Amino acid sequence: MHVLGSLAVRGCRRIDLNLRSLARHLQGQVIEETTGPLGLKTHSSTNEAKHNFVIKTPKGSRDIHPRQMVIRKRVFNTVVNCFKRHGAQTIDTPVFERKETLAKKYGDEYKLIYNLEDQGGELLSLRYDLTVSFKTKLCGGLDFDIAGKYDPMIPDAECVKIIHEILSELQLGDFLIKVNDRRILEGILEICDVPRNKFLSVCSSVDKLDKISWEDVKNEMLREKGLAPETADQIGEYIHLNGGMSLVEQLLQNPRLSQNKLALEGLEDIKLLFQYLRLFDVTDNVSFDLSLARGLDYYTGVIYEAVLLQNQEAVQFQQQNDPAEETVGVDSVAGGGRYDELVGMFDAKGRRKVPCVGLSIGIERIFSLMEQKAEISKENIRTTETQILVAAAQKNFLEERMKLISDLWNAGIKAEMLYKKDPKLLKQLHYCEDTGIPLVAIIGEQELKDGVVKLRIVSTREEISVPPENLIEEIKKRSS
Amino acid sequence: MHVLGSLAVRGCRRIDLNLRSLARHLQGQVIEETTGPLGLKTHSSTNEAKHNFVIKTPKGSRDIHPRQMVIRKRVFNTVVNCFKRHGAQTIDTPVFERKETLAKKYGDEYKLIYNLEDQGGELLSLRYDLTVSFKTKLCGGLDFDIAGKYDPMIPDAECVKIIHEILSELQLGDFLIKVNDRRILEGILEICDVPRNKFLSVCSSVDKLDKISWEDVKNEMLREKGLAPETADQIGEYIHLNGGMSLVEQLLQNPRLSQNKLALEGLEDIKLLFQYLRLFDVTDNVSFDLSLARGLDYYTGVIYEAVLLQNQEAVQFQQQNDPAEETVGVDSVAGGGRYDELVGMFDAKGRRKVPCVGLSIGIERIFSLMEQKAEISKENIRTTETQILVAAAQKNFLEERMKLISDLWNAGIKAEMLYKKDPKLLKQLHYCEDTGIPLVAIIGEQELKDGVVKLRIVSTREEISVPPENLIEEIKKRSS
Repeated sequence: MHVLGSLAVRGCRRIDLNLRSLARHLQGQVIEETTGPLGLKTHSSTNEAKHNFVIKTPKGSRDIHPRQMVIRKRVFNTVVNCFKRHGAQTIDTPVFERKETLAKKYGDEYKLIYNLEDQGGELLSLRYDLTVSFKTKLCGGLDFDIAGKYDPMIPDAECVKIIHEILSELQLGDFLIKVNDRRILEGILEICDVPRNKFLSVCSSVDKLDKISWEDVKNEMLREKGLAPETADQIGEYIHLNGGMSLVEQLLQNPRLSQNKLALEGLEDIKLLFQYLRLFDVTDNVSFDLSLARGLDYYTGVIYEAVLLQNQEAVQFQQQNDPAEETVGVDSVAGGGRYDELVGMFDAKGRRKVPCVGLSIGIERIFSLMEQKAEISKENIRTTETQILVAAAQKNFLEERMKLISDLWNAGIKAEMLYKKDPKLLKQLHYCEDTGIPLVAIIGEQELKDGVVKLRIVSTREEISVPPENLIEEIKKRSS
Repeated sequence: MHVLGSLAVRGCRRIDLNLRSLARHLQGQVIEETTGPLGLKTHSSTNEAKHNFVIKTPKGSRDIHPRQMVIRKRVFNTVVNCFKRHGAQTIDTPVFERKETLAKKYGDEYKLIYNLEDQGGELLSLRYDLTVSFKTKLCGGLDFDIAGKYDPMIPDAECVKIIHEILSELQLGDFLIKVNDRRILEGILEICDVPRNKFLSVCSSVDKLDKISWEDVKNEMLREKGLAPETADQIGEYIHLNGGMSLVEQLLQNPRLSQNKLALEGLEDIKLLFQYLRLFDVTDNVSFDLSLARGLDYYTGVIYEAVLLQNQEAVQFQQQNDPAEETVGVDSVAGGGRYDELVGMFDAKGRRKVPCVGLSIGIERIFSLMEQKAEISKENIRTTETQILVAAAQKNFLEERMKLISDLWNAGIKAEMLYKKDPKLLKQLHYCEDTGIPLVAIIGEQELKDGVVKLRIVSTREEISVPPENLIEEIKKRSS
């Protein structure tokens, strides 16, 4: 629903603009139409907008509240900070043009983040029907790509390390990063004499092995893909395998696989990947899984997909209750791989290839998981960052409050005051408890006489008298 | 062009998705269509996307490069940090629905930021023709609103203070915040016996006084708005006035104005505003300007607009060269006002009103100004935040580099290494100079023997030997 949500969010936000622009635009006509008070005129133009609104809001509309927004920013910052830790730069431009432009302008080597802003763009720019049919695939990814000709598997290993860092930091629970190589799968299918024009469709069956039983996968291979039972069984023997470096070594000894050129290339790269991942100390969460297939149509080498282990039941459940639902990667929170052929296709010459390896974080799915977690943990989430409330102990201190808060703002302190001339002290203290503001600066007759400000720590109700000149450093000390 | 730029950026970004989704989606068919290698299959599906691409890219497309992205993030962060300093919360949802939802859920009092992401939404969700015709009005604003029933002018004054803080921090040069009150203008027109149904169109002429000469404004009033010459001259006397508190006092003494109910209300509020702005110590940059009109159709009280003073010539120039161009607010970088009637119109009951005062920062215009500044100053802008490069002095140190960089990443250090097994030291040092990485951690035979890492400061070429266990704190010390 997040996809549609975002769609709606932005879809509706536009109305505000239509209203404002329209209202200005229509000034001329409106006054011809009505001679009532201005309020009415505005109303007539807003009705246009409202009309608009009704037409344009798609189904599944939802608004995102401050609480959720805070959770989303946390997740977003964790991901983007990790990308930056790995030397990424942010660019906001069409992906293929971007890759070329960069390839031309900065040579063939660069890293990039797609802006989350882009996501809004994508989702919005997709027609509603597309959004619906593709929603299980889109679900708002945040991507990181490394392009350029390098020594084998060094950037690939960094991509897996990045996924490991992000999922560890987000504390989403145990996770497993499955890795495979598209050439190994192709090799297996070649060995099993599957005709090449059936590779993709057979692989899409293979990819379901973590969601449905082998019997069902096999049935699909026989009935829908037209394989012979013994062919399916041969494939089955391979794709049931998963493990670590030892499995790689073992398969490298396997006479049939090691004699297949594609499979051998793939196995040697996976071996190198595991060597590098061992240096990164992440192999505990990585599994070489021969049933992992992903978007085989554009991946050209290593592929990987991260799944949350607690999530499995939820997925099974979803499968049973919504079999129609597209199942590819429903339980995955991140994935990617090497796609050396994809970029360069949009090259003017239409031929030049830029080797690329990348990953995509399923940010929308992670958002909703984190929101669930927050719901369950009843975590008390602040929706503002206000450090201090400037309060008055008695009436007639508006001037002093305004002067003081202005000094605090100018010093970079996040400060609020109630917009009343003479708010009750109790009401001001309640506001802090309701909104989680940790400090109160209280000005009153006594404080004015003593030339101090009373600083109250909301949690402990402790109160100390602070000379105005020390207030800012005192606040900073207690805020850090 | 920024508006169209954003539109294009996101418009094109979508293609990536269409490609990926489509490619997956078409797996079944694709293989029926072609029996060539996978590369070809991918190509066939990317052609779809490319086709898409050609159709959907709007004119004025531009990509935003890392350098610009850095400048934009700086501006964006300055604005959003200021909003947060004033207790704003971020919400991503339709503006009117948001205001109601909040009014219902959190009572009638709240502040909010519209997400910049929203902007992409608006721009995208506008049809291309709309975007073109409205582009001078849209130009990507970032908004802050305070809603709720409060004592007069306290939130209004905070909005002006916010504009002052942002323009000061951005160091865009001298600026002036013009303030007026819609009721004062209406009062003036009543006094001058302008028929009410001409208020809006006459005001749009008044609003041009800072862009075109009084003669031209007067001509427009006579020829287009059908006013009598003496009426225009009477209006002219008032709207030429601008000044500070003294002007407010003076007009409060003016028998005709002070006897007009609307004008009197407006003048008393402007007086209160100036009293509060004096407490905020921002009156030097604030001018009471009776020619300021803005979107009179929905503003109901105080209005304000910030202009950059150096910018004036540029604007005059634009007017002369592009008279057709919509002139309202072309030179303004921020504006806003009170619109008590606007919100509540989308209320289910269609009647309830939520008093609102808000401001909008012309973020896209500020982006381009900052980009110009950076161009002129030849400022050297880094596009990554990498703190250190992990380098090898000789061959065969890939393992050590990978172990070390992994430790640095895990400690939150932003670190890079070249993706070559055995890069030349000189090439690694050049990379730092090219990309502005300030530190290099060098591992070599000598360092290995001595059990240290050599830390090189790129700017000074100074090199110090650091025990591995001290490296992280040493990097943090030198990065801050």
